[in-house]
Amino acid sequence: MNGFRGILAICCVLACSITAAVAEDENNGKRYLIIHSDDAGMSHSVNRGTIEAMENGIVSSASIMVPCPWLPEFAAYARENPDKDYGIHLTVNSEFKNYRWRPVAERNKVPSLLDEDGYMYRGAEAVVANARADEVEIELRAQIDRAKEMGIPLSHLDTHMGTLLMRADLFEIYVRLGVDYNLPVLFMANIPPERLKQYPGLKDNFDAKKQLLQSNGLPVLDFVTMYYQGGPHEVRKAHYLNVIRNLKPGLSEIIIHCGYDGPELEAITGSYKLRDDDRRIFQDPEVIAEVKKLGIEVITWKQAHEMAAKPQAAQ
Amino acid sequence: MNGFRGILAICCVLACSITAAVAEDENNGKRYLIIHSDDAGMSHSVNRGTIEAMENGIVSSASIMVPCPWLPEFAAYARENPDKDYGIHLTVNSEFKNYRWRPVAERNKVPSLLDEDGYMYRGAEAVVANARADEVEIELRAQIDRAKEMGIPLSHLDTHMGTLLMRADLFEIYVRLGVDYNLPVLFMANIPPERLKQYPGLKDNFDAKKQLLQSNGLPVLDFVTMYYQGGPHEVRKAHYLNVIRNLKPGLSEIIIHCGYDGPELEAITGSYKLRDDDRRIFQDPEVIAEVKKLGIEVITWKQAHEMAAKPQAAQ
Repeated sequence: MNGFRGILAICCVLACSITAAVAEDENNGKRYLIIHSDDAGMSHSVNRGTIEAMENGIVSSASIMVPCPWLPEFAAYARENPDKDYGIHLTVNSEFKNYRWRPVAERNKVPSLLDEDGYMYRGAEAVVANARADEVEIELRAQIDRAKEMGIPLSHLDTHMGTLLMRADLFEIYVRLGVDYNLPVLFMANIPPERLKQYPGLKDNFDAKKQLLQSNGLPVLDFVTMYYQGGPHEVRKAHYLNVIRNLKPGLSEIIIHCGYDGPELEAITGSYKLRDDDRRIFQDPEVIAEVKKLGIEVITWKQAHEMAAKPQAAQ
Repeated sequence: MNGFRGILAICCVLACSITAAVAEDENNGKRYLIIHSDDAGMSHSVNRGTIEAMENGIVSSASIMVPCPWLPEFAAYARENPDKDYGIHLTVNSEFKNYRWRPVAERNKVPSLLDEDGYMYRGAEAVVANARADEVEIELRAQIDRAKEMGIPLSHLDTHMGTLLMRADLFEIYVRLGVDYNLPVLFMANIPPERLKQYPGLKDNFDAKKQLLQSNGLPVLDFVTMYYQGGPHEVRKAHYLNVIRNLKPGLSEIIIHCGYDGPELEAITGSYKLRDDDRRIFQDPEVIAEVKKLGIEVITWKQAHEMAAKPQAAQ
């Protein structure tokens, strides 16, 4: 359960409200929203839940954990459905107690990323304490390259458990990979100072990195929220509806975690109920209708990239 | 589904009746039976089914696939239940379509065991065609050593999908590992000639290998059977009851595959129903009572080893 608590802590941080940085006149006051599901490939339950929420719900994007055992199932879906939106959930942790995975790169090239059993470390702290930056980059490039080799069309990058935001050199690599591969990275336009305690890697040349992304035509997000907490379905649904009703103009992302409750997911993570609930909520006709009524434009990372790139092209 | 069909073919071969080689006077006419479940660690479903059948049924032994993602869950159970009987299901295949695993050894040390995605090959044929024997030995030793390092008490070795019986040099390694680690290997005392087509590796110095095992106090089996076929529960149960009723004196093993039917197992393998059925049959009070009524002694591999070692010790 340590992994669960660790993720929970990170999620509470991400759930902060970040004031929309894009002025209304820059986007005609429009509210663009990416509804994004993490952890595709992590398990069959997550694959099933993610695909259902993309097919039947309003989840507009998902990101994939390439080192995980169920990658081939999700990769096959992505190849068969190239119109949908996929990113790489850059992964340097194998956080669960019962169920583990190994890196994509050859292990002798990334020894500082591995625990004594040859899996990736469970905790983000262990990665921060032990990982060599050059080996992190080898592994992350291996993940992106492997996904491309498997025929997955990619739209963006983000970071599993926020680990790559915790050390300046890892955050540097994260942004550089986005530029090198011409893929947007999950990057918030403004970080409240108190959040830097959780993600100390962000404080190093933050503005310069934002400028680097934007000058390369890569979008940054005005608002990011995540609600990785359990609770009754109606309470959780009300929370999400509240988030949706209070969206400000600009580019926002709601990060969710879709899955199916069942023995597999319950044996992996204490978050099984909330993952099942996220899947249901973002297929709920009332939630879908509310988004429509409010005139919120649900978009993909690919569309966000195109929107960000256009002004650059005109320069 | 190719993996399923491949396994099915192998299983049909193993299901042959091998005449008991141990004369009645050698064991007082007793019928010793190991009821053995394969593939522990392969998935949560298989772990759950195997543990239940060992706890509540008459499954007396199981073997573990060390490269598989759910190894940590089963290893924890084995550490907490050292009185139960565990072997290594030596694994050089990652046969399923949607769900894959990587080797235990560093991949640059075993490149001939890997497909283009860095997983173990799916089919036994690909292993037979491509694997270097020295690399197979590196991987198999890594699997045994990893299990021991994880605190799993080991009683025996066997071979997933029978791959190690398909080439003489792999069969040689398999037997040598048993001797080196002082662990019995699944080894049949007599192989009907027609079966050598399926397992051509067996024909090379078969008698010498048997003698090597026996001279090291390691048991060989007089009869091995496996029924890896679907069908109605009652038909399958009747088949197993028939096998049990017709057991001859000597040391026999029934190989089964326990699991729980559900979305995880169904997404992995077409054998999900028969694995669920095997779990149920070997907990069935009628089956348990029949074994008892017939005076069959259900034993572990550890007990078989002790029985085989005793005469040697007296020499």
